[in-house]
Amino acid sequence: MSKTSQKSFASSASHAPTRAFSSIGLIGRLESDKVVDSLRRLIRYLNDNGYHVLIEDRTATALPGHGQPEASRRMLGELCDLVIVVGGDGSLLGAARTLCRSGTPLLGVNRGRLGFLTDISPDELETRVGEVLAGAYEVEQRFLLDAVLYRNGVAVGNGEALNEVVVHPGKAVRMIEFELFIDGQFVYSQRSDGLIIATPTGSTAYALSGGGPIVQPKLDVVTLVPMFPHTLSSRPLVIDAASEIRIHIGETNHTYPHISCDGQTRAVAKPDDVLVVTRKPERIQLVHPIGHNFYEVLRSKLGWGHRLGD
Amino acid sequence: MSKTSQKSFASSASHAPTRAFSSIGLIGRLESDKVVDSLRRLIRYLNDNGYHVLIEDRTATALPGHGQPEASRRMLGELCDLVIVVGGDGSLLGAARTLCRSGTPLLGVNRGRLGFLTDISPDELETRVGEVLAGAYEVEQRFLLDAVLYRNGVAVGNGEALNEVVVHPGKAVRMIEFELFIDGQFVYSQRSDGLIIATPTGSTAYALSGGGPIVQPKLDVVTLVPMFPHTLSSRPLVIDAASEIRIHIGETNHTYPHISCDGQTRAVAKPDDVLVVTRKPERIQLVHPIGHNFYEVLRSKLGWGHRLGD
Amino acid sequence: MSKTSQKSFASSASHAPTRAFSSIGLIGRLESDKVVDSLRRLIRYLNDNGYHVLIEDRTATALPGHGQPEASRRMLGELCDLVIVVGGDGSLLGAARTLCRSGTPLLGVNRGRLGFLTDISPDELETRVGEVLAGAYEVEQRFLLDAVLYRNGVAVGNGEALNEVVVHPGKAVRMIEFELFIDGQFVYSQRSDGLIIATPTGSTAYALSGGGPIVQPKLDVVTLVPMFPHTLSSRPLVIDAASEIRIHIGETNHTYPHISCDGQTRAVAKPDDVLVVTRKPERIQLVHPIGHNFYEVLRSKLGWGHRLGD
Amino acid sequence: MSKTSQKSFASSASHAPTRAFSSIGLIGRLESDKVVDSLRRLIRYLNDNGYHVLIEDRTATALPGHGQPEASRRMLGELCDLVIVVGGDGSLLGAARTLCRSGTPLLGVNRGRLGFLTDISPDELETRVGEVLAGAYEVEQRFLLDAVLYRNGVAVGNGEALNEVVVHPGKAVRMIEFELFIDGQFVYSQRSDGLIIATPTGSTAYALSGGGPIVQPKLDVVTLVPMFPHTLSSRPLVIDAASEIRIHIGETNHTYPHISCDGQTRAVAKPDDVLVVTRKPERIQLVHPIGHNFYEVLRSKLGWGHRLGD
Repeated sequence: MSKTSQKSFASSASHAPTRAFSSIGLIGRLESDKVVDSLRRLIRYLNDNGYHVLIEDRTATALPGHGQPEASRRMLGELCDLVIVVGGDGSLLGAARTLCRSGTPLLGVNRGRLGFLTDISPDELETRVGEVLAGAYEVEQRFLLDAVLYRNGVAVGNGEALNEVVVHPGKAVRMIEFELFIDGQFVYSQRSDGLIIATPTGSTAYALSGGGPIVQPKLDVVTLVPMFPHTLSSRPLVIDAASEIRIHIGETNHTYPHISCDGQTRAVAKPDDVLVVTRKPERIQLVHPIGHNFYEVLRSKLGWGHRLGD
Repeated sequence: MSKTSQKSFASSASHAPTRAFSSIGLIGRLESDKVVDSLRRLIRYLNDNGYHVLIEDRTATALPGHGQPEASRRMLGELCDLVIVVGGDGSLLGAARTLCRSGTPLLGVNRGRLGFLTDISPDELETRVGEVLAGAYEVEQRFLLDAVLYRNGVAVGNGEALNEVVVHPGKAVRMIEFELFIDGQFVYSQRSDGLIIATPTGSTAYALSGGGPIVQPKLDVVTLVPMFPHTLSSRPLVIDAASEIRIHIGETNHTYPHISCDGQTRAVAKPDDVLVVTRKPERIQLVHPIGHNFYEVLRSKLGWGHRLGD
Repeated sequence: MSKTSQKSFASSASHAPTRAFSSIGLIGRLESDKVVDSLRRLIRYLNDNGYHVLIEDRTATALPGHGQPEASRRMLGELCDLVIVVGGDGSLLGAARTLCRSGTPLLGVNRGRLGFLTDISPDELETRVGEVLAGAYEVEQRFLLDAVLYRNGVAVGNGEALNEVVVHPGKAVRMIEFELFIDGQFVYSQRSDGLIIATPTGSTAYALSGGGPIVQPKLDVVTLVPMFPHTLSSRPLVIDAASEIRIHIGETNHTYPHISCDGQTRAVAKPDDVLVVTRKPERIQLVHPIGHNFYEVLRSKLGWGHRLGD
Repeated sequence: MSKTSQKSFASSASHAPTRAFSSIGLIGRLESDKVVDSLRRLIRYLNDNGYHVLIEDRTATALPGHGQPEASRRMLGELCDLVIVVGGDGSLLGAARTLCRSGTPLLGVNRGRLGFLTDISPDELETRVGEVLAGAYEVEQRFLLDAVLYRNGVAVGNGEALNEVVVHPGKAVRMIEFELFIDGQFVYSQRSDGLIIATPTGSTAYALSGGGPIVQPKLDVVTLVPMFPHTLSSRPLVIDAASEIRIHIGETNHTYPHISCDGQTRAVAKPDDVLVVTRKPERIQLVHPIGHNFYEVLRSKLGWGHRLGD
């Protein structure tokens, strides 16, 4: 695996004299009193400790009288050293897609169901955020996927995904027919309800429901999971993330497949269109308190067994 | 198993003196030259042998100058002793839903991919149809499902299915949340891409792609197959076909689930709606030439192993 | 489904004047202090309430000074109106295989992990057993399988199973090759790690780990689950429990497959042997307190979702 | 991915003046007339073209009067530039385990079922082998796994595998209980029929039957596939091949699990033993004729769909 995909621990030397972070951006899921509550606690804590705080403009609408400067999500990436997202994994997915351009580190506070990406619990908000700000953190890099839809050789739509790109029939219960090519090599043609193209980050999300394997977050691989394939011997395929994945929509399809990224439709394909999925060059920087443990989240979410004798 | 679901072999005594069938209805899949070809051969053969032939009116549009009386599909059920369907399993599904009311026996000639329901090959059309008309046939009964959607206690939509009823998000890649009750007992709540409720006939169709078991056609059971369930321990459930299956759409759903029957949307549910699925009292009468073998079709379609030593 | 496989509720009229049960047999799993504790509480409770108590002779070795008559497990079936088994589902499986001959009703007290068969919790021992003895109970019938191994037409081994019969390589990680016939019809030949032939009772046990469906306990069906099949399109098959299942061990097998019943090896097959599995004519009578709920046990054991809004 | 795991194409410049290979070793599966036939054709062809041929001593027993020097399999690795294996994938697995030490390139001629590793068909033996000898070939590197079993800290058994290491109960149908650690981090405890630890090469073998994903051969990952896990949410896990995989056999196990490598038992574990699996430093050099296509083998073996329109 390449160096860039491995966890790097901040050495104490590098952050002792100067602070690791000074400008902190805040993004919160809307329409949740719990999120507002956590955001207000965060603002107070950060102000008390002399940090410069910026609020994402849409988040600000839920925080009347917050008294901090506001900025668009994209500007937050330019202006901040760290962005804290309060919400569920879905909120962090959205922020990650925007912030991967600037490479701003992201820290997630979990106010949804237990999250794979948002791993600070609201009860220990100040303690854990304090530890991170004091330099006790790990940075994990995660890659995203770029999806571009071509018609007669011209790009007609695109999207990006931290979890997965999905080709699906749009209105369900209609098979689509397509050909798959990896790095130019023909792999198979398939009649199915579609195909999930998942990053390691997405391997614990939709792809898992579809029968895909769980993939260590640091691996540079992509998993292709066929959805309800007509041929029963179709199986999940794990390939190099550096591959070019090309999906040729069958010319005789009766349906116009949708291309969705992290659960949102980004383009609608016509017969004979070609979808190309590749790894984005930029990666997001996901910040965790020291001691973050991927397997612990899996055990908790999937009910896996604890230490014997416990 | 109840008597009605078992194969009954026509005893030679019962049909020797009089013909088993005298009025034969013909239905064909549209837009296929091969189907037209088989239909013309059938008309000639049946006329030559003194049978009364009726053509379904829509099928007739593809047979200019056929010279036979025409009738609607429903009337065909009233007027004929036997209806022959030329096409794929999909064509037979459609005919079966209409003809189950009259109980008219159905015989399928396969002009699509190899079929589970249409088991006469076009090369042996006259021979095999001749055998059946001469009384050498088996009748297999298959049940259908009735689906009724209720809103505030009032039926707002319904459909019937020989293969399966599916509750799905309409636009895919959006989980729906629902509660399942069997004969009034709460079974589970589930977040998933939907639920397939399949007859034994449908167990080799969509439900099979979704991981359901293959069920002997004669069994009086229904299989419930969760689609991409969020909880990984959700599994296919095989229940008594006499059960009342009730699905309560979650009140907080953000999506309006579709109810489809044999692949066609029949109703769109709102949050808090209730879908009730039960077995129809009428069954279709599926006619096979003697020697029809369910497992042979499975071996052929699924690539299962042949006799050892072969 | 046949009447015999349905739950029958004891009407209060039928047991009011005379007691439902008077002689109670006790069987407990050995080598467990918790089981001994529950057994002693049961003896005291039953004696205090004037019931005649018999202890299975092997169980008696763990209860020095119990002061009750002892009998073999088989005699318990002859002498008692009800046998209470204290332990896990495994203990009840063993008792069921012996007691199905006499048809003695069985009640399970759970001292292992939460059980599908042993549904009285030890905390509510006296209350729930009291209710059952007072006539407030349901009886559920469960069928068993008979397995007979034939060599050159002569039976050379046999066993019976409440959960499942398994054909497996004995020493794992060696494929076996066999042919499957149902009611004399050839189904497939298969190279795999073996085959699980499960009752509905067994559908929540080993067969479930192998990818089989969950089957309502009352259904008269058997599920055949291939184990790690070489052909990926091999799938679980649900068939009529009245079927004769015949497995012809391949003549060129390099391994001597074991035949196990409820997890215990009963016979070792040679190449060309034939295993015949059929439903036993006798059924066990499983007693539950009123309100026993199959789905509640499933929800609890499999982590299925509760009522929405809870 | 590291350089070492990628395909390298021999440039014509590097082998034009001198031959790519001069001493060729031959290994064949025993007890097969077809293999003997192919070996004799190979000897003749290689002699006619001036190559030095060595026969593995065990293979030589099937080739009386072959007239070539003989050597042990291990010596073949020292003395030859290329070893050709005639048989199935199993024959090549065996040769690979021995020859990975010397790094001798391996070429497979398929005389079993269609193989993933042995990709020269016997009909085109001379043509394809001739092409390879003339320098038109690709070399693919595949890694192997080292398995060492420790008891009280002392190694008591070991093995190596090109496909997979399997921990299984020895006599099947008995769950084993173990804890899994990856790079020292606790992952889960599991009750199951065992665990398959597969290389990408092994991902299309036993692991595939167990529900594992198909992995591109060049990837530096290992797949862990639970066998019939008691917890239904246990799923295949894809991890960095550089990881140390540690399996702690439960202290209270009633069974002595076997450790098998590529299908052969190498050690028997006691409760509290620890199995450590790591990637071997040496890799095998698998030689293919130019144009070898992994996906073509998959399509052929798994019945995947061909180009649309074909």
